[in-house]
Amino acid sequence: MLYCVQMEVNIPDSLPAERAEAIKAAEKARAVEIQKAGKWPHLWRVAGRYANISILDVDSHDELHELLSSLPLFPYMNIQVTPLARHPSAI
Amino acid sequence: MLYCVQMEVNIPDSLPAERAEAIKAAEKARAVEIQKAGKWPHLWRVAGRYANISILDVDSHDELHELLSSLPLFPYMNIQVTPLARHPSAI
Amino acid sequence: MLYCVQMEVNIPDSLPAERAEAIKAAEKARAVEIQKAGKWPHLWRVAGRYANISILDVDSHDELHELLSSLPLFPYMNIQVTPLARHPSAI
Amino acid sequence: MLYCVQMEVNIPDSLPAERAEAIKAAEKARAVEIQKAGKWPHLWRVAGRYANISILDVDSHDELHELLSSLPLFPYMNIQVTPLARHPSAI
Amino acid sequence: MLYCVQMEVNIPDSLPAERAEAIKAAEKARAVEIQKAGKWPHLWRVAGRYANISILDVDSHDELHELLSSLPLFPYMNIQVTPLARHPSAI
Amino acid sequence: MLYCVQMEVNIPDSLPAERAEAIKAAEKARAVEIQKAGKWPHLWRVAGRYANISILDVDSHDELHELLSSLPLFPYMNIQVTPLARHPSAI
Amino acid sequence: MLYCVQMEVNIPDSLPAERAEAIKAAEKARAVEIQKAGKWPHLWRVAGRYANISILDVDSHDELHELLSSLPLFPYMNIQVTPLARHPSAI
Amino acid sequence: MLYCVQMEVNIPDSLPAERAEAIKAAEKARAVEIQKAGKWPHLWRVAGRYANISILDVDSHDELHELLSSLPLFPYMNIQVTPLARHPSAI
Amino acid sequence: MLYCVQMEVNIPDSLPAERAEAIKAAEKARAVEIQKAGKWPHLWRVAGRYANISILDVDSHDELHELLSSLPLFPYMNIQVTPLARHPSAI
Amino acid sequence: MLYCVQMEVNIPDSLPAERAEAIKAAEKARAVEIQKAGKWPHLWRVAGRYANISILDVDSHDELHELLSSLPLFPYMNIQVTPLARHPSAI
Repeated sequence: MLYCVQMEVNIPDSLPAERAEAIKAAEKARAVEIQKAGKWPHLWRVAGRYANISILDVDSHDELHELLSSLPLFPYMNIQVTPLARHPSAI
Repeated sequence: MLYCVQMEVNIPDSLPAERAEAIKAAEKARAVEIQKAGKWPHLWRVAGRYANISILDVDSHDELHELLSSLPLFPYMNIQVTPLARHPSAI
Repeated sequence: MLYCVQMEVNIPDSLPAERAEAIKAAEKARAVEIQKAGKWPHLWRVAGRYANISILDVDSHDELHELLSSLPLFPYMNIQVTPLARHPSAI
Repeated sequence: MLYCVQMEVNIPDSLPAERAEAIKAAEKARAVEIQKAGKWPHLWRVAGRYANISILDVDSHDELHELLSSLPLFPYMNIQVTPLARHPSAI
Repeated sequence: MLYCVQMEVNIPDSLPAERAEAIKAAEKARAVEIQKAGKWPHLWRVAGRYANISILDVDSHDELHELLSSLPLFPYMNIQVTPLARHPSAI
Repeated sequence: MLYCVQMEVNIPDSLPAERAEAIKAAEKARAVEIQKAGKWPHLWRVAGRYANISILDVDSHDELHELLSSLPLFPYMNIQVTPLARHPSAI
Repeated sequence: MLYCVQMEVNIPDSLPAERAEAIKAAEKARAVEIQKAGKWPHLWRVAGRYANISILDVDSHDELHELLSSLPLFPYMNIQVTPLARHPSAI
Repeated sequence: MLYCVQMEVNIPDSLPAERAEAIKAAEKARAVEIQKAGKWPHLWRVAGRYANISILDVDSHDELHELLSSLPLFPYMNIQVTPLARHPSAI
Repeated sequence: MLYCVQMEVNIPDSLPAERAEAIKAAEKARAVEIQKAGKWPHLWRVAGRYANISILDVDSHDELHELLSSLPLFPYMNIQVTPLARHPSAI
Repeated sequence: MLYCVQMEVNIPDSLPAERAEAIKAAEKARAVEIQKAGKWPHLWRVAGRYANISILDVDSHDELHELLSSLPLFPYMNIQVTPLARHPSAI
């Protein structure tokens, strides 16, 4: 089941730089892991913003929330979720 | 080059039903045509809305506008375009 | 799988009164039908508005869209869908 | 009397981690307590967000405010309240 | 139990003038009736707008919705409802 | 002359707790004082929020601003002011 | 007492052209009349929009509403009212 | 003096098609005329929307409003104007 | 040439009180200076907010930006600028 | 390929002044560099705001993101990107 997920990152200036870097590295590792598991088929950068538009493919809302909240940047992201259905004109 | 395109359809009640049906049929045909040309790789229905989230793959902004404005429903759609770049964590 | 669905009805003044009444009657019948099928466990009126907040329980985004777009008032509604997951503090 | 209550949590980065954890634990205990008292019949996580959608069942606006402001996370939440009436099509 | 109710009137230009006048007269009569019943203690005009800010005093959300939807202008109003609790600093 | 005043309080986490408590106590005292002077006829809590909806009754915009900016919480509040006129249907 | 009043005009396409012209002519006459009475000291066009920003100088909210609702374009305007107080740095 | 002007066109469905075409043709002629006069140095289409982003170069706000309101599509456009100053980093 | 300028002040709590007072005093002095130069003909307080609505009269966008950015509170203000043209009904 | 890019700068008060100045100086140097490379043909200051409206001319979304995220102020900017196509009325 597909979800369009838009994530906007907003790291507060008060976070020490080295801590921020560690979180970003962990984020990347976790993102790669979820992609390799086949549950994050598309991950695009929004040009000009520290944000992404993603397609996630999971079995349930619970699994979606579990994956997203496992991201190290989760506390610093504003996330919008849109459930996607099959489009009648899609080939 | 990829664009995330969100289209929301809003057909005014004043449009005669048979005219609306004709436009929708033409829309479907045109959408299939663009997909077959490889320029509309993803087309999803937003669950619960007369709207879609799409990924278009074209060579330029001009081509994108040409394709979108060739859609028969174009005069009745609110369209948001987001240019997508490669994400450093995408595999 | 649960979804919170907020529906706001906006019937244009141009719709003849008897047509509007027929649609509302059909809407009620369809809403009862979906509830009886166990797929619409909660349906509340938003006090003071021609709107409702609903909980739907279906197997997939596709089924959700199918049900919502089968509502006779669908063309006259603005619908917001929020996927609901289990809350860790829920008993 | 039912209210739809949407709570969005926003803990500032300046709050020490152990203090945040203590507040969250107290929040959970208080949420369980209110649920057990039969006044919080539904509590769902908004998938992908540190937020919930809840149904509260209390006798008055005063009691609602008392319950919500007794939550340890109250100072860190943005809360929207919607009074719910009976829907004429609900079975 | 008190509610702050903000009503914004928007009569479409397509409504015949005499019909609009009849609705407004009926609205006034109904508003007076509800006030006389003690359920609409305050009714103020928002200066410069075809809108009002009101305080309603009713026993339940159901009664509130019943009263508001009985207003002849109800189909032409955008209504926001805010439940009011006792303020700890009120004398 | 009446004004509807909506105040939303937002105390930054950086304010020491005892300082915040002192400001709140001073706020309460000042609010009682203005009410006793007959210039703040209604003060309601917005259920579920650290906010109020108030009716102030003063002689001029200058007096309104003077009163509101004399509130100890003024620097921490977002305030919306709506001038109220007599409503033709009010009894 | 001063008010900043922002008026945005939106004449529906369904209004016959000659009717619209008659309303605009009446609007102009009424606007001149109110200005000559000294109650509308400033009237500016918002560059690029069918809108104005005005300063009105009247004795009460009631008088303000009376003047604004006497404008022939009143049913076709969205009006925002901001009460203005003396500024401590104004000379 | 430069202004960034964003124009969004919204032609109501009630306008007869031939009338709309005539207005569009007149719009194009007028747009060319203003460009040739050197007062509209940049005119771009917003990809995917019936909208443009323009730079106008005129001597005063009055001239700007005169030009924009002389456009045949002016009654059907939502226009946002942003005054542009020299940027200290521009070469 | 006239501009309507709306300034909203938002001084962060982290700024030491004496520093804030010094900036406010400097702001007042600068505001008086610009007014005396005839370039800030109107300066009003928005009742109930730490905000003002102003009319500035300068020769160019560059001069406007120069004046506004010379204000000591500039880094703490959200400023909206609206270019004003002559209104055809102004006397 | 052209993009309209709107950048709004928001430097947090917690950033030490000398650090902020160093970032601004580096920003200016980088902006000049990109302009000299012919990829930033227009850079305008939004009058009254710490913001700019720019036109960038690059070969791809990837190159756009690379340039924008190379700006030293990137972490402190809110950036909106609008892809621009050729306008049929442009000469």
